[in-house]
Amino acid sequence: MEGVVSLAHGDGGLATRELLREVFLKYLDDPALRRLEDSARVDFPGPCLVLTTDAFVVSPLFFPGGDIGCLSVYGTVNDLCCLGADPLFLTASFVLEEGLRLADLERIVASMAQATRRVGVRLVAGDTKVVPRGMADGLYVTTSGVGHIPPGTDLRPERISPGDRILVSGTIGDHGVAVLAARHRLLEGEATLASDCGPVHRLAGAARRFAPGLKVMRDPTRGGLATVLKELAEAGRCDLLVEEEALPTDPAAAAVAELLGLDLLYLASEGKLVAVAAPEAADAILQAWRQLPEGQRASCVGEVREGSGRVLLKTALGGTRELHLVTGEPLPRIC
Amino acid sequence: MEGVVSLAHGDGGLATRELLREVFLKYLDDPALRRLEDSARVDFPGPCLVLTTDAFVVSPLFFPGGDIGCLSVYGTVNDLCCLGADPLFLTASFVLEEGLRLADLERIVASMAQATRRVGVRLVAGDTKVVPRGMADGLYVTTSGVGHIPPGTDLRPERISPGDRILVSGTIGDHGVAVLAARHRLLEGEATLASDCGPVHRLAGAARRFAPGLKVMRDPTRGGLATVLKELAEAGRCDLLVEEEALPTDPAAAAVAELLGLDLLYLASEGKLVAVAAPEAADAILQAWRQLPEGQRASCVGEVREGSGRVLLKTALGGTRELHLVTGEPLPRIC
Repeated sequence: MEGVVSLAHGDGGLATRELLREVFLKYLDDPALRRLEDSARVDFPGPCLVLTTDAFVVSPLFFPGGDIGCLSVYGTVNDLCCLGADPLFLTASFVLEEGLRLADLERIVASMAQATRRVGVRLVAGDTKVVPRGMADGLYVTTSGVGHIPPGTDLRPERISPGDRILVSGTIGDHGVAVLAARHRLLEGEATLASDCGPVHRLAGAARRFAPGLKVMRDPTRGGLATVLKELAEAGRCDLLVEEEALPTDPAAAAVAELLGLDLLYLASEGKLVAVAAPEAADAILQAWRQLPEGQRASCVGEVREGSGRVLLKTALGGTRELHLVTGEPLPRIC
Repeated sequence: MEGVVSLAHGDGGLATRELLREVFLKYLDDPALRRLEDSARVDFPGPCLVLTTDAFVVSPLFFPGGDIGCLSVYGTVNDLCCLGADPLFLTASFVLEEGLRLADLERIVASMAQATRRVGVRLVAGDTKVVPRGMADGLYVTTSGVGHIPPGTDLRPERISPGDRILVSGTIGDHGVAVLAARHRLLEGEATLASDCGPVHRLAGAARRFAPGLKVMRDPTRGGLATVLKELAEAGRCDLLVEEEALPTDPAAAAVAELLGLDLLYLASEGKLVAVAAPEAADAILQAWRQLPEGQRASCVGEVREGSGRVLLKTALGGTRELHLVTGEPLPRIC
C-alpha cells in the first residue's frame, strides 16, 4: 500500500474509517471487530462480556477539568457503559518518556485511582515501558476494559426506527474546547471553561431501566456529536433530524469554539451520553437523567425519520444542513 | 515526588519495581494488581477470567524472526498462558506516528492477524490514535487479553516447595539478542540468528495436563530468565539453584551476546516457558515438551531448595554466583 500515515488518519471520522477498512479490517476481520464500535460484545459460556480498549495521547497532559489519568479511566468505562454493560475490570499500559517528571506521573496515577473509585471499577493489571527522550510526549496510556451485560440488554443501532427520539445528556463539545484552549493557552484563569471529563455510568444505568424502548447509546467523543449521529444513521438505515436550537451548549465553550473557528458539533465530549429511544421511553429517560447532577441539561434534540443514513440539522435560521463524519482539518491529540 | 523518569525505569527489573511500588501501587492497590504479575486472575460469577495488558515499543519494528505485530499478539497470549488460561479475546490500541509508511503498517497488521490465527484467539476491539511527527517512533501498540482458566488450575509461586525442579522450554535470550543485533546492524545477512518470537500456548497446554504437580509457569521476557527466577524465588520464599551448564543456549546468540558484552541470562525470550514442578510432573512435562517442535531443547536447569528468596547459579567452573533482578545498564525497547 502506498502513502504514509497523516494526522487526518486520527480524526475519528472519514479518514480514520478509511484507514481501518483498508488496512486493519483487510487482515483482522473478526465479526465483533468489523462492527467498528468502541466496544465488542463477545459470546462466552456464562456472562455476556464486553471488551474495549483506548489509547490516550491527549496534549496537554493536564487541562481544566481533568488530566490524561482520569480521562483514560472514564473514556474506557464510558465505552463499556454505552453497550449497557456494568464496568468490572480495567487494565492500563503506560508508555513513559525518559525525563517525565515523577511528580507529574504520580499526579496522573492518583487521578486514575480516584476515577476508578468513583466508578467502582477495579484496575487489575498493568504494564509500563520507557522510551528515550523525544520518542513520546510525556506519556501515553492505553486502558482496556471488561464489562458484563445483564441478560435482556440489546442495544444496537439496527434497532433504531422512525419516530424514535434523540437525546443528549448535557452540553456538547466541552472537552474538545477545554483541551484546545489549554493547548493554545487561551483564557488562562477563566474558571468557567472546563472539560466535562467524567463517568456516564449513572446516566447509562438510569437509561437502561427503560429497555426495550432504549435502542442505542453512544458517547460523543472524538469527532463529536455529528460524527456519532452519522454513524448511528448509517448503521440504523434511517435519517436523523436534529434541531440546532435544542442542542445544549455552554456559553463559554460556544464563545471559545467560535474564536477558534470550530463547530461544537464536531468537538469531543468526555462525560456525555447520546441515546436513541422510543418516545415513551425517551420521556422517562430524560426525567431520570435530569435528576442526576450530570444530567441537569439533558435534552431531546431531534428524532428519527425514514431515510438513507443522513443527519439533517435544522438550523436556528430555519435552513437545513447535512452533517457528515468529521473530515478535513484534524484536531489531533484531543483524547 | 522528586526526580524524572529514566530509561532504567523501563528495565523490567529493580528500577521498574521501585517505580511500580512508589508511584503506581501507592494509589492503585487492587489485590490482583498488587501481585505485580503479568496477568491478573479475577473472580467473577461464572468462569475464572484472566486479564493482561502489554505495551509494545520495540525498536526496530521489524527484526529477524518477527515484528512488533506478531510480538504484540504472542506477548499478550503468552502472559495469559502462564497463568494456565486459554486465551480467548484480544484488543489492540495503536499510537501511530504521522509519516509512518502505510505499507509498514499493513505488514504489521497482517503479521498480527496471522499470529491470532496461529493461536486461535480473536482480536475483537481496537483503537487508533495518530500523533504528530516526532511524538512517537513509527508506532506503539498495546494489546490486552482475556483468557479463561479451567476449573482446578492453581498456578502460583507460593506453591513452589523444596525439591521441585526448574524447567525451561528451550534456548534463552534469543529475542533480546536478535533485536539488539538488528538495532546495531550487526551480522546482517546472518540467517542463523533470529528472535524466538512465538506462542507458548501448546507448551503451556502440555504442562497443564500435569497439574497439580505443576506449580507455576512464567515467560522469561524483559529482564530475562534471571529476573523471572528471582521473582519466583522471592514470592515462593525458597532458593532456586540453577546449573549454568544445563541452560540451553543458541551458539550464534551466545556469540553475539558476548560481542555486545551482555549476559543471556538477562536477555528476553519471547516464545519460551519457565516452569517449576514436583519431580515426577517435571519429568512428564519435559517429555511432553520435547515432542513439540518448539520444545525440542527443553531442559531441567535446576531445583528448588529451602532458603530466603535467592537464585544461585552454579557456574561451569564450579563456582556459585547469585543472580538478581536485572539492574544497571538498561536495554530499552526490547519489546
